[in-house]
Amino acid sequence: MPITKSQVKYIQSLAHKKFRDAEGVFVVEGPKMVAELLQASNLQPRAVYALPGWIGEQPASLRSALTGINESELERLSALTTPNQVVAVFGKPVFPPPVFDRGVLLALDGIQDPGNLGTMVRLADWFGIATVVCSPDSADVFNPKAIQSTMGSIARVSVCYAEPGELISASGLPVYAAMLEGEGLYGIGRIDRGWILIGNESKGIRPELQALATHRVTIPRIGHAESLNAAVATGIILSHLVGR
Amino acid sequence: MPITKSQVKYIQSLAHKKFRDAEGVFVVEGPKMVAELLQASNLQPRAVYALPGWIGEQPASLRSALTGINESELERLSALTTPNQVVAVFGKPVFPPPVFDRGVLLALDGIQDPGNLGTMVRLADWFGIATVVCSPDSADVFNPKAIQSTMGSIARVSVCYAEPGELISASGLPVYAAMLEGEGLYGIGRIDRGWILIGNESKGIRPELQALATHRVTIPRIGHAESLNAAVATGIILSHLVGR
Repeated sequence: MPITKSQVKYIQSLAHKKFRDAEGVFVVEGPKMVAELLQASNLQPRAVYALPGWIGEQPASLRSALTGINESELERLSALTTPNQVVAVFGKPVFPPPVFDRGVLLALDGIQDPGNLGTMVRLADWFGIATVVCSPDSADVFNPKAIQSTMGSIARVSVCYAEPGELISASGLPVYAAMLEGEGLYGIGRIDRGWILIGNESKGIRPELQALATHRVTIPRIGHAESLNAAVATGIILSHLVGR
Repeated sequence: MPITKSQVKYIQSLAHKKFRDAEGVFVVEGPKMVAELLQASNLQPRAVYALPGWIGEQPASLRSALTGINESELERLSALTTPNQVVAVFGKPVFPPPVFDRGVLLALDGIQDPGNLGTMVRLADWFGIATVVCSPDSADVFNPKAIQSTMGSIARVSVCYAEPGELISASGLPVYAAMLEGEGLYGIGRIDRGWILIGNESKGIRPELQALATHRVTIPRIGHAESLNAAVATGIILSHLVGR
């Protein structure tokens, strides 16, 4: 049975946050990520449209949840320039209530680029950080570009939208705030508790949150670039403070 | 004098490597980067199209090189979804001949994503690495997305396209190759000479180059993400080996 116009319209509508929020779902594309998310116990697929070749490679237990489509249907459903075998709609992941008063947490203040945001969630997952708090004005992690950049980490990292200031103040944990003029990163030892706070790509951390920093952390520069990409800076800071 | 159709066509043609190579030029957009590149002594602007407001903010010495355009002309010239005040064409930067047998060098094997490539050049600039060698099958650093991701570092880092294997072999320097199964990064001390070798986003470093590694370097994982973004991994490795 060919896909209907209304199915295509529905998937396309999910490019908009308003419709994703109303439905509680998000879209993922590509064989690797969809296969990974299909295995995740805290995610439910609502619809999976795939080329027959890809469906044939899936475990028999999954196949009943998959809808076969052809190349031209895939092109209509996909938001990618180069559609890649499968487009899936998942319900948003469910996590146990996050804990804000122990361990290492990542707080993001106004990250605007969905690719950066997704990459940061992937980094949190790599470095074993269970919770990422995004200020309400941050990009939406269920934006298609953000989701693709998480590379499946969306199933393992709890991403919440809340005012970081309130959670930070209530937590009693130290705050390591990434700033251009601060204490050198490499002089700080490994940490096992605290907030790592990263600011907007061009404006940095807003002053009210800067005021909560117990450490203002700077990646020392050797050369001449004016700044680092926000996701790269997050990776460098997590590597030094948490990864070692 | 309004911009002509042929000027618009010329700028648009420069989205293609073939035309950039034939002309020896590349396109940059946005006030911050264009202003920075206009200051660079090793770059010559060929044409700068800007809104009158932006032109008014530039030093008088520069203004003769700038062409005023209106919003709708900017939209026709720009490749961005949100055009940003100025579109410029520059001749490719000129550098002294690179030195491949001392200091720290970055070698990239088949990086495909222009954004990753540009971010890596920006990272090299931050960490004081003068030369980046890209294998011939890598993305073009003068691709508009790559250029925007360099954030001006294209004027300060010499990017060459050559077989890394030959340069590495001839250099006699140690080779730190980023790989998923190797020696833990954090056990390696600071380096002041050698190649840092980064592979393709999905396939990694090809076997012939892996064979030249004196150190196979892995970023230890604490959590569950399957991999890291290539530019983020480069940042973490440079930070640890060079930045500290």
